[in-house]
Amino acid sequence: MNRVDGTGGGYVVGVDFGTLSGRALVVRVSDGAELGTAVHEYGDGVISAALPGGQPLPPDWALQNPQDYRDVLRHAVPAALAAAGVDPAQVIGIGIDFTSCTVLPTLADGTPLCEVPELRERPHSWVKLWKHHAAQADADRINALAHERGEPWIGRYGGKISAEWQFAKGLQILREDPEVYHRAERFIEATDWIVWELCGTETRNVCTAGYKGIRQDGRYPCIDFLTALDPAFGNFVAKLDGPLLPLGARAGALTARAAGWTGLPEGIAVAAGNVDAHVTAAAAQAVQPGRLVAIMGTSTCHVVNGTRPASVAGMCGVVDGGISPGSWGYEAGQSGVGDIFGWFVAQAAPAAVASHERLTELAAAQPVGAHGLIALDWWNGNRSLLVNHDLSGMIVGLTLATRPEDVYRALLESTAYGTRMIIEAFAAAGVAVDDLVIAGGLTSNDLLMQIYADVTNRPLNIIASAQGPALGSAIHAAVAAGAYPTIEEASQAMGRVHEAVHRPDPERARAYDALYAEYRRLHDHFGRGGNDVMLRLRAIRNAALDTAAGRTETLWEMVG
Amino acid sequence: MNRVDGTGGGYVVGVDFGTLSGRALVVRVSDGAELGTAVHEYGDGVISAALPGGQPLPPDWALQNPQDYRDVLRHAVPAALAAAGVDPAQVIGIGIDFTSCTVLPTLADGTPLCEVPELRERPHSWVKLWKHHAAQADADRINALAHERGEPWIGRYGGKISAEWQFAKGLQILREDPEVYHRAERFIEATDWIVWELCGTETRNVCTAGYKGIRQDGRYPCIDFLTALDPAFGNFVAKLDGPLLPLGARAGALTARAAGWTGLPEGIAVAAGNVDAHVTAAAAQAVQPGRLVAIMGTSTCHVVNGTRPASVAGMCGVVDGGISPGSWGYEAGQSGVGDIFGWFVAQAAPAAVASHERLTELAAAQPVGAHGLIALDWWNGNRSLLVNHDLSGMIVGLTLATRPEDVYRALLESTAYGTRMIIEAFAAAGVAVDDLVIAGGLTSNDLLMQIYADVTNRPLNIIASAQGPALGSAIHAAVAAGAYPTIEEASQAMGRVHEAVHRPDPERARAYDALYAEYRRLHDHFGRGGNDVMLRLRAIRNAALDTAAGRTETLWEMVG
Repeated sequence: MNRVDGTGGGYVVGVDFGTLSGRALVVRVSDGAELGTAVHEYGDGVISAALPGGQPLPPDWALQNPQDYRDVLRHAVPAALAAAGVDPAQVIGIGIDFTSCTVLPTLADGTPLCEVPELRERPHSWVKLWKHHAAQADADRINALAHERGEPWIGRYGGKISAEWQFAKGLQILREDPEVYHRAERFIEATDWIVWELCGTETRNVCTAGYKGIRQDGRYPCIDFLTALDPAFGNFVAKLDGPLLPLGARAGALTARAAGWTGLPEGIAVAAGNVDAHVTAAAAQAVQPGRLVAIMGTSTCHVVNGTRPASVAGMCGVVDGGISPGSWGYEAGQSGVGDIFGWFVAQAAPAAVASHERLTELAAAQPVGAHGLIALDWWNGNRSLLVNHDLSGMIVGLTLATRPEDVYRALLESTAYGTRMIIEAFAAAGVAVDDLVIAGGLTSNDLLMQIYADVTNRPLNIIASAQGPALGSAIHAAVAAGAYPTIEEASQAMGRVHEAVHRPDPERARAYDALYAEYRRLHDHFGRGGNDVMLRLRAIRNAALDTAAGRTETLWEMVG
Repeated sequence: MNRVDGTGGGYVVGVDFGTLSGRALVVRVSDGAELGTAVHEYGDGVISAALPGGQPLPPDWALQNPQDYRDVLRHAVPAALAAAGVDPAQVIGIGIDFTSCTVLPTLADGTPLCEVPELRERPHSWVKLWKHHAAQADADRINALAHERGEPWIGRYGGKISAEWQFAKGLQILREDPEVYHRAERFIEATDWIVWELCGTETRNVCTAGYKGIRQDGRYPCIDFLTALDPAFGNFVAKLDGPLLPLGARAGALTARAAGWTGLPEGIAVAAGNVDAHVTAAAAQAVQPGRLVAIMGTSTCHVVNGTRPASVAGMCGVVDGGISPGSWGYEAGQSGVGDIFGWFVAQAAPAAVASHERLTELAAAQPVGAHGLIALDWWNGNRSLLVNHDLSGMIVGLTLATRPEDVYRALLESTAYGTRMIIEAFAAAGVAVDDLVIAGGLTSNDLLMQIYADVTNRPLNIIASAQGPALGSAIHAAVAAGAYPTIEEASQAMGRVHEAVHRPDPERARAYDALYAEYRRLHDHFGRGGNDVMLRLRAIRNAALDTAAGRTETLWEMVG
């Protein structure tokens, strides 16, 4: 018989589905000790140029293959168990977290449409990854109509929903491939879909329903709104809606099929689905109001609990119970961070310095301001505060004396300025940000961390786990299995954080105030209508590529 | 006895002093046939980090060693004669052209101050190369005072004199090292100094005196103006002034010493000094009004003759006889062109594509607008129309999908937009630009040439000599030797051009109109006061570097 209290034995498994791979982590319930982990890379990774069958994709698309997610369960979970050396019979629950908004259309039984043979060559039948950015026009329509009609929910999303979210991606399917839209009996977050695969029961979690699905005060957008977008879109909520679970709830019991994939005991608790960023708050002991967690990887998500709902211009959303039941969970984000540094190393660094290590070493040697550069960190669009994925990156201050490490440092700094914009927006709306905890793969770059401490002029606490999301999922699994009564209590017992690892230097912080003022001025000019050149260049680029691919007749029809 | 008429025999030598090397060319007087050439690289090249003795230099400095110029005469001229296989006794004259404004302080006998032993470790005693950009503050003072006093000459320079020019560089010496200033008995363009070395007679040419020395209507700026800048600056014109020669004049006879260096006959004609850009007009058969010559290399100079003086905002200058006697010569310029492309290959291109050839091949394959980028081509400041070397480069539109060839193409295009700004400014002031002739090292890049044709929507004529400046200097030598009565006649006989090599494509030209409109908007925003972020970043950079080098106490004292 398994022990199901926090003081005794027992293990849980957390599975973190990332952008390129999934990771399983075996954790001890009593103290959160991480006993074994394993990673499985997705076979098809991010599908952006062409479908596996060869069908080419337009710009800004990013798809995934759902079979890759099942393969993580089949390979990473047994490998993590083996690495941990624990008896699988002692595992009492499994929890998962996922990138988001990553969504797929399925049949009523959960079969992904891309696994329906006659739909396999149709791009819209595949999983749309969070960073699929081809639905900006749809998001623009949704936002314009919401403001025109005075929809009550739009303020909960800082005045704009994102092109990354469920309604924009769903509307794009309807607009570009109505047949796929009509064949989709369900439209579901990947996090809820994999939970469905694990326990055989379809559920939805309050976190993604709220942040990515526009569910507020117990309701989705009304049918009048949907049909005003498109008469055929009125049934979209019917495809989305499902039994809704709070975070930490038990979604069901592990099926025999999933037990066979994972090597775990049939019947153990499967926790409600969750999002990588939000679940990390539990791992970082940061579910109390005022402690903001920044999960920094390819992109950055910021989550912080508050005591009441407030409208924060340009944030991603505020959701009742969106991080933990009983608080209002706020989310903001930067859609490119580590991805930008990676782009630089791969696409813009000469051979002699083409590594993060070498560039960091060289960049660390220079005083603040010595490179003379400012960048806007919008290589992958801007999620907060501008909520526009047609924005793009910019660098100013380049000279013949500019070296690669100068630009690299300016890129690191630009993402810190972007984080400071978000913190200041929260503060201006009365949402306290007393304290920062940094999680994610970028915490290992000391220069980057010091820049964040200096730019935000706040001490940085660093999560004490290298696997924050997977640990958070394991904590949720422990709650779902009944080992702890609340996420807060499980977080205190199983999460961990190093306090004040990086402290701001007063002189550097003052220097960065001047540079941040320049960033802010450029941010507002290019992001808030001073000069919409980025949007026009994007339209010109898309038209030029469409023309070259034969998708439209002349270059300038879209932008003339 | 040498033949001195254009219809008969005889040869001339043109010597072109560039940024990194000097080239000699042996040319037949009768038809301009190029018979032999040789290059000599400067031993010290561009001195920008530290003096040869080790003394470190501040940012934006660029010096040269005058001995390198003598070495060109000693090595390149004999080698060119040998390559040509002509009897040196048949050579009737030598002409030279130089980068400009490249200036040096000397003793009364022409000895460079950096060759005076006790001054050798003083940076201000060396030759200041054209791209020495550390005198912007001095140029700013000169311009402000000129406008305040309503100086009549300022309109002849588009309203601003450049930090590259004689008065700004001279004032910087006085301000930073008064002792070197006072030891300088002469302050002379390198072109006039090397003529002095050749013929033993100090002269000045109307071209550099007008464009770089603020000589207008027979006068330099008055002593009241100079002493208002600095009481000790009142004697600056006395250091500058000297016997003034029109272009194509005979400055003197080759001395025995210079004959020994070059292997040329003692006593042959030495032509008045000249500038690489201006002398190219003769080589390109482009001395008639309305035909603009763009000499494209590390930087670009634009010269065009007009029939009367006009004020063109932001151009470099208009000088009576500045290109050829009898016309008003207009000059404009872009201070970084090939240098920017070279920077990109060396500092920003991954190994797999790090060559101009490969990047050009990849960039040529894409349709106009497909990269979604606009750059401002100010990596080396902006000479025309903004006349500010504290401006810097900018790129907007960067995404995770941006490839190196995209940025490379955007840089090529940005320089074409900069040329179009200049052409439009001339046209707006009533200076006709009917026709373009391109000269210089970049003419061999077909993609670049086609972009210029498409962006300017004009057919491009290409100079038919690979050695335009050296050929132009040879043409001037032929006039100085009396073989032709005028530069126009010598140019017709000895110069050559391929007409309409690159024709604009109407569809691409229309596409570029839209992108040029974006360039222009960014140009005016960052260059004309909309946001002076570039100037502030430069001040911050200089302060940070000064602090790091111990030259000032705290980072922010200059910019706080």
